[in-house]
Amino acid sequence: MKNYEKMIHEWLKSQQQNGVRLLTKLVQQASTQGNEAKAQAIVIEKCRQLGLEIDIWEPDGEQLREHPYFVSVRTDFSNSPNVVAILRGMGGGRSLILNSHIDVVPEGEVAQWEDEPYSGAVKEGKVYGRGASDMKGGTVSFLLALEAIRALGIRLKGDVIFQSVVEEESGGAGTLAAILRGYKADGAIITEPTNMKLFPKQQGSLWFRITVHGKSAHGGTRYEGVSALEKAQIALAELQKLELERNARIVDPLYQHIPIPIPINVGKIEGGMWPSSVPDRVVIEGRMGVATNETVEMAKQEMERCISVINETDEWFQTHPVELEWFGAQWLPSAIDENHPLVAVLVDAYKCVKGETPTVEASPWGTDGGLLSQVGQIPTIVFGPGTTAVAHHPNEYIEIDNMLTAANILALTIIHWCEIAEKGESGA
Amino acid sequence: MKNYEKMIHEWLKSQQQNGVRLLTKLVQQASTQGNEAKAQAIVIEKCRQLGLEIDIWEPDGEQLREHPYFVSVRTDFSNSPNVVAILRGMGGGRSLILNSHIDVVPEGEVAQWEDEPYSGAVKEGKVYGRGASDMKGGTVSFLLALEAIRALGIRLKGDVIFQSVVEEESGGAGTLAAILRGYKADGAIITEPTNMKLFPKQQGSLWFRITVHGKSAHGGTRYEGVSALEKAQIALAELQKLELERNARIVDPLYQHIPIPIPINVGKIEGGMWPSSVPDRVVIEGRMGVATNETVEMAKQEMERCISVINETDEWFQTHPVELEWFGAQWLPSAIDENHPLVAVLVDAYKCVKGETPTVEASPWGTDGGLLSQVGQIPTIVFGPGTTAVAHHPNEYIEIDNMLTAANILALTIIHWCEIAEKGESGA
Repeated sequence: MKNYEKMIHEWLKSQQQNGVRLLTKLVQQASTQGNEAKAQAIVIEKCRQLGLEIDIWEPDGEQLREHPYFVSVRTDFSNSPNVVAILRGMGGGRSLILNSHIDVVPEGEVAQWEDEPYSGAVKEGKVYGRGASDMKGGTVSFLLALEAIRALGIRLKGDVIFQSVVEEESGGAGTLAAILRGYKADGAIITEPTNMKLFPKQQGSLWFRITVHGKSAHGGTRYEGVSALEKAQIALAELQKLELERNARIVDPLYQHIPIPIPINVGKIEGGMWPSSVPDRVVIEGRMGVATNETVEMAKQEMERCISVINETDEWFQTHPVELEWFGAQWLPSAIDENHPLVAVLVDAYKCVKGETPTVEASPWGTDGGLLSQVGQIPTIVFGPGTTAVAHHPNEYIEIDNMLTAANILALTIIHWCEIAEKGESGA
Repeated sequence: MKNYEKMIHEWLKSQQQNGVRLLTKLVQQASTQGNEAKAQAIVIEKCRQLGLEIDIWEPDGEQLREHPYFVSVRTDFSNSPNVVAILRGMGGGRSLILNSHIDVVPEGEVAQWEDEPYSGAVKEGKVYGRGASDMKGGTVSFLLALEAIRALGIRLKGDVIFQSVVEEESGGAGTLAAILRGYKADGAIITEPTNMKLFPKQQGSLWFRITVHGKSAHGGTRYEGVSALEKAQIALAELQKLELERNARIVDPLYQHIPIPIPINVGKIEGGMWPSSVPDRVVIEGRMGVATNETVEMAKQEMERCISVINETDEWFQTHPVELEWFGAQWLPSAIDENHPLVAVLVDAYKCVKGETPTVEASPWGTDGGLLSQVGQIPTIVFGPGTTAVAHHPNEYIEIDNMLTAANILALTIIHWCEIAEKGESGA
């Protein structure tokens, strides 16, 4: 271990309390869609303290809506600012984007939470609250890594471009806005919750809405109606079959330990208006995983075909077809070669800090990596301290040790990727 | 055919236009729960024209809530008046209640209606609109029957007590209030939509709510959560099995032509909050039929047992039990002997008017007959011109011919049951 590697390790060990305090403050801001400004203000203040070049702007919905991969339900991003903060290099090195999102999904059923959902409570080495794992812990890992580099007076050749973006949970309009604003780099890391695994490939995903029609009738003579809920079972079963088929095709060894590489998740159902009437309409909303070796268009066509088949074969659906819409969020799949130099640098940093080889897998969910790699043409890898076992769950938490260890690994990765500038190399 | 029978027949034939006009006016008042007053005003004006003794009152929710069979979601009946109008007899005859409800179920998905749901449009011998069959057409049959008797100067021995009640669609608080106000009789007829069949027995029904719990998770790692919708399938399948079992036991010949004598209808489903999260809660609301030879308590116990079994056998439910609640509406089952004199009188009147024997069956749905017979101890039969094939459906209608024919049968039934008073028998 080189001298600066030891120093970074020691410095980060001393910063545990500060890191936890920063995370708690971030978690306590309920930065659900449209409510990100207060959490961003904390990020901005931290970046100011680190002496970074700061760029704050509200994404331009009118510009974004023209882009084929813009999918948000809103075009008004007032009070939803993006933040980019640059640690400018001395020149001559590779640049690196550090991307994390500040938005969180809603808290779900509050009764299932032990503490208040946005408590930021610290218990037994963990920080609790919505967003702790997904992904404010990852944001703090980035900021601690940058702080370590600054604190130890290390100067880099390449630029480090830290991004705290909005709207990841709804399809990536924040990251898309950052790309369209001109932010590029030779590589990108996203600290989504990988539970300390490396994900050079990330699946994409699409939101869908399926509407099933029935025929209302008095519940006492329900055989005179057609239950949209009973007919919806046909669509639900078809989605399960489609999920099986699509996943049976996945042979990428990076997915070998993932039970369902590209899941089809039904997240919402709503139907019927009256207990004693036969429901005449059921609406299902869900999320379809997109494989790293297919396009979102290919995935869409496959589900559209699946719905066409039941519309052609089921007698009721022949005259009352199931409707399929794509709406809301969409994440492009992303993949870089496992032998890409960025992977190698990250693997080495991991080995140096942890003394063991990291797990390299493909992610079972979409990230903004799809936009960075497909739209921005930036090789992207996902690696973060949180875990999806708790993300989007009640009682979400992050292990403080992982957050600090990730910061350490990221600091070394940044240094090795962007390179230390020899003294006198600075133009400043 | 006796002379007055012919005269009634002729007189009713001449009144078709007036009957249709009255029904159209009633249908055009959207008398859903809480909005019955305007439709009742039309009934009251008609009863006034017929010279009946009129009693109008708003049910007393505070008094009703003490009653074990009160089940409404409300106790405030302001602007929801009951109407009772009596054709007082000369004395010495059997009395008869003519019961119909003025409330209608909501219109459902408006797009499925060809005309506006409360149009009252007259097309090809039918009057269209929510409530035409269930049961404003039946209300008009009663009023035309009474008008025929009045117009022809027929005086009866027994009292005829016409009731236009609120709240039938939500469990019968209107009829319960009429019973508690003291209205009794030697028999009762309800003109619910039987499609001109005689229903001496009517099933009861109960509303239930089932809540299924899951465990939320990110949709991309849905295998880390437990989908409340997938777990709800277990409860739904169990309800289907229970429906099969319960109906297999029904041997009453009156149910032999009814595909599902006592259905379990799932009318509403709602679950999940976010397309890409695993849903952690699904709520199902429905209606359970109660056999004429069981009590509502027996039916409740059977479904409770069914839910207990899945809570004991399913591993997830062992720690996250399915919850069952009884809420909202409830209709008691009702049965009188097929050989009861009221049945005989109605059958004879039917034969006289139609020249054929009526179909005698058991109803596949609950009516206020359960309250009249079980609480009021009044032998009750259901017979009406509408049809449940269109009740609670879009494009509900009633056939005008049936409405007139039912009026004719009812007029003869009233006369034969209450008996014509000989001249001079009147004390007036």
